[in-house]
Amino acid sequence: MIQGNKFRQAGPTLNAVAALMGDDLRIVNDIIRRRMQSEVALIPTLAGHLIDSGGKRLRPMLTLACARLVGYEGTLHHSLAAAIEFLHSATLLHDDVVDGSSLRRGRKTANLVWGNRATIFVGDFLLSQSFELMIETQSSRAIELLSRATTKMVRGEIDQLGAARRLASNEADYYGVINAKTADLFAVACRMAAVIAGENERREAALDSYGRNIGIAFQLVDDAIDYTSSDAAMGKAAGDDFREGKVTLPVILSYRDGDPQVRRFWQDVISGRTPADEAALEHALHLLETRGAIAETLARARCHAEAAKKAIQYFPDSDLKTALMEAADFSVSRTC
Amino acid sequence: MIQGNKFRQAGPTLNAVAALMGDDLRIVNDIIRRRMQSEVALIPTLAGHLIDSGGKRLRPMLTLACARLVGYEGTLHHSLAAAIEFLHSATLLHDDVVDGSSLRRGRKTANLVWGNRATIFVGDFLLSQSFELMIETQSSRAIELLSRATTKMVRGEIDQLGAARRLASNEADYYGVINAKTADLFAVACRMAAVIAGENERREAALDSYGRNIGIAFQLVDDAIDYTSSDAAMGKAAGDDFREGKVTLPVILSYRDGDPQVRRFWQDVISGRTPADEAALEHALHLLETRGAIAETLARARCHAEAAKKAIQYFPDSDLKTALMEAADFSVSRTC
Repeated sequence: MIQGNKFRQAGPTLNAVAALMGDDLRIVNDIIRRRMQSEVALIPTLAGHLIDSGGKRLRPMLTLACARLVGYEGTLHHSLAAAIEFLHSATLLHDDVVDGSSLRRGRKTANLVWGNRATIFVGDFLLSQSFELMIETQSSRAIELLSRATTKMVRGEIDQLGAARRLASNEADYYGVINAKTADLFAVACRMAAVIAGENERREAALDSYGRNIGIAFQLVDDAIDYTSSDAAMGKAAGDDFREGKVTLPVILSYRDGDPQVRRFWQDVISGRTPADEAALEHALHLLETRGAIAETLARARCHAEAAKKAIQYFPDSDLKTALMEAADFSVSRTC
Repeated sequence: MIQGNKFRQAGPTLNAVAALMGDDLRIVNDIIRRRMQSEVALIPTLAGHLIDSGGKRLRPMLTLACARLVGYEGTLHHSLAAAIEFLHSATLLHDDVVDGSSLRRGRKTANLVWGNRATIFVGDFLLSQSFELMIETQSSRAIELLSRATTKMVRGEIDQLGAARRLASNEADYYGVINAKTADLFAVACRMAAVIAGENERREAALDSYGRNIGIAFQLVDDAIDYTSSDAAMGKAAGDDFREGKVTLPVILSYRDGDPQVRRFWQDVISGRTPADEAALEHALHLLETRGAIAETLARARCHAEAAKKAIQYFPDSDLKTALMEAADFSVSRTC
């Protein structure tokens, strides 16, 4: 909790990027809205429930901003940005379909309102719309990059399912999962801008690194605030990952450096042998604080945000570059 | 039941096509197996549970056979056939994730063994592998056709969810749904063979019609045998559609031509106002038999099988053409 509040005071936002990207963002939002339409009313209703619910449009915004940064003057970035938002939204819908009782308290997920099947198929619809959008660009390298990132992202989700309730996962496994599950898509969102602009490999790699580091930072913060946020801030209860037996970095750090008693505690709750109830969560939070595991997770996120900024430092100075630097800071300033 | 058995005696199989397509089928199976592999063990395990469970490979077989029929000599048909099987398998996995209690008795679906989330994400994995396979062919028209068919298929699934429990659906709606949900993919599976072979529009349309009519016939038979098959033959109980409130052709026919009492019965059970229990199913079967609704559904399926055969009649005679004619008959001879 302490760490979360401290970062909140830093206060960078996405406003600067959003302001600079105004027209492009409007075009992308129009594409998104148009592609969500269907004579099948359930599609715009269910998809809109998620897509219009105040998402930050972070990934498409990065595509748009990076395209501008490299001086791209075409229109393919609009379709690709929309494709990326659809992809991301599809994963969110599929992620919300849970086994048994809902784990997202305080938030009406699509599956609670419309049921599992409808939520899955609307997710599939968004996924296939995403592919149609990609394909329409006819940029074979962008299509290839994005479709591979999709496969990798899904593989990451499945890998994480396997990692749940297994404390054998180490740091390297964890970074593997968050790269596949989150950071690769951020990386591709940025790299694609260089691809469609016909930029050289060095600039492609720079944007890839910028996006990847933001993605990693983003996920690290996500995993930290899952333990520290309050219901009010996040619209869900703290400790969801804990209850699901997810092995995230804070847990890995506390387990790795813990004495036998600490290790046994984590083994028991992660494996599900002892219930992950409120008392267990209290104890978990105590152990994480003793180890400084949340603070270290957030500190690592800050390092990745710095790496992201460094990756684009050789681009000429501009308001946009400054805004992209701020976007990197934003990725570690979130408290929810 | 009577009708089902009658058709069983006709006995056409897919053996002739399968025998003629032997090498091609082996190549496609190799692609499927290779693409299912992943260091994430859950993927081949869960996907293999479905894909290796004795599926007929009907859709990919049609692609292969049609490619041979038009004299195609390249290798793209292998990737496209595998893509189609992945697509179909992804839908099956997603279709198996149900709301609440399972409706597929007597059959261990993937979601029962591995849970909803794993099943959804492995479905997503197959979907994205399917797109990767399409994209690798670099045949932009085939990619476009197949990706549009995917979107349409998913839209059909969602449309059917909306149609469940609403007896307002008429015949036209029903044909719309089964075209989108089933027949379009069959049509594209066949049409693509002409596309990659660079055939003229007339031959493209002929193969499209062949596939579409087989698809419609296939779905009509599916909807008929859902009311007539036994647990033993189908691995699931008769009446699943009935219990789910699905408005299929047999129901539409009985409702449309029924007296007020018959109509009220269908309205009550389809809407869920009265329970779709065993007694209700008994009565439903009685009404369907009185109306001859199953017989008419199967008769229509036969018409579509004949239309499929007619669509390819102008192709030069060959063993393969004969086998494809038999495949059309097979689509209406299934009893499970």
